[in-house]
Amino acid sequence: MKAAITYSGGKDSSLMAVILDRLGYEVELITVNFGVFDSTKPATESAASLGFKHKVLELDEQILFDAVDMIIEDNFPNNGINHIHHSVLEILADSYDIIADGTRREDRIPKMKFNEIQSLEDRKNIQYINLTGIGYKTINDVSDNLFILQKAESDIHNSSDYEMEIRVLLNEKGYDTDEIFPRHIQSRVIGWNKNE
Amino acid sequence: MKAAITYSGGKDSSLMAVILDRLGYEVELITVNFGVFDSTKPATESAASLGFKHKVLELDEQILFDAVDMIIEDNFPNNGINHIHHSVLEILADSYDIIADGTRREDRIPKMKFNEIQSLEDRKNIQYINLTGIGYKTINDVSDNLFILQKAESDIHNSSDYEMEIRVLLNEKGYDTDEIFPRHIQSRVIGWNKNE
Repeated sequence: MKAAITYSGGKDSSLMAVILDRLGYEVELITVNFGVFDSTKPATESAASLGFKHKVLELDEQILFDAVDMIIEDNFPNNGINHIHHSVLEILADSYDIIADGTRREDRIPKMKFNEIQSLEDRKNIQYINLTGIGYKTINDVSDNLFILQKAESDIHNSSDYEMEIRVLLNEKGYDTDEIFPRHIQSRVIGWNKNE
Repeated sequence: MKAAITYSGGKDSSLMAVILDRLGYEVELITVNFGVFDSTKPATESAASLGFKHKVLELDEQILFDAVDMIIEDNFPNNGINHIHHSVLEILADSYDIIADGTRREDRIPKMKFNEIQSLEDRKNIQYINLTGIGYKTINDVSDNLFILQKAESDIHNSSDYEMEIRVLLNEKGYDTDEIFPRHIQSRVIGWNKNE
């Protein structure tokens, strides 16, 4: 059973990978890139530090352009980021039978709604899995046990989130990205804790 | 990290136990009983077959009586079963820091809503975990890989669901329980697959 997991190098998608690995899935971590800025290095390094198979998936830049247009129109990132995530899952569903992401209980964006999951699973005859059954406190505790984490303010050099290429495009167009994306501390996985 | 999991002996709660065990939790499976009919034997046997610690928790029969009153009033089991499940989680939250159940993505009853989870976690300062991130197809596949399953029509001799003691009480009161609880095939876990 092979499972593709959209992967940023963060603790959520890393935990999703560990769960599926430990349930017997052959895990393949997938980081997408749209060719605007190579934001995949942090995720590639995180995947290697855990010993999981990792692939960079180059996707059509038009998906990113459309997302950025939505974000400018909305002056708010949510719809644009959801557009990217939904597009990525649709594309992965053509190549994998089981696809997963690290969205957890409190996540709002990106997030698949119940009816969107049902539709994706039925149309593409795939299975979709996420971390909606788990809250952030549990994820923090488990991640602290499993992983060595590097905490830093998220920027284009240490994160492979969709946000990074969006930021680059918005900056090129003269927008203040700090206004659209509040600064936040992110935890990047850089290895296994020694007990694991 | 000790985690209490409400346990019926079925594949969902068994899978929840396996996930938490493999993430490093000390797992304790909990099957409740209200003293009306001892429905705990199937769950006790399933837990033993997997080698997990198991406890029977005897609870106030009034919880069951109230649930049965609700089911008679509604002529429908949902509110009554939810009443039991919520009461059980409230009680477990007084003794455990981490509580979990095997409710999955499509489950409607019993099911904790998002705001109910937030409330329980905040009031009791606990963490609650379930399988809402996983759909039935995935749970079937993973369970078939992990467990030896015994499939049979659910009845009071092979299931430790809340439903069993409710059925006994309803029968005593002269109600046709087959009308209230549609007959269904359940999968009980009776051991590990040899590869595990």
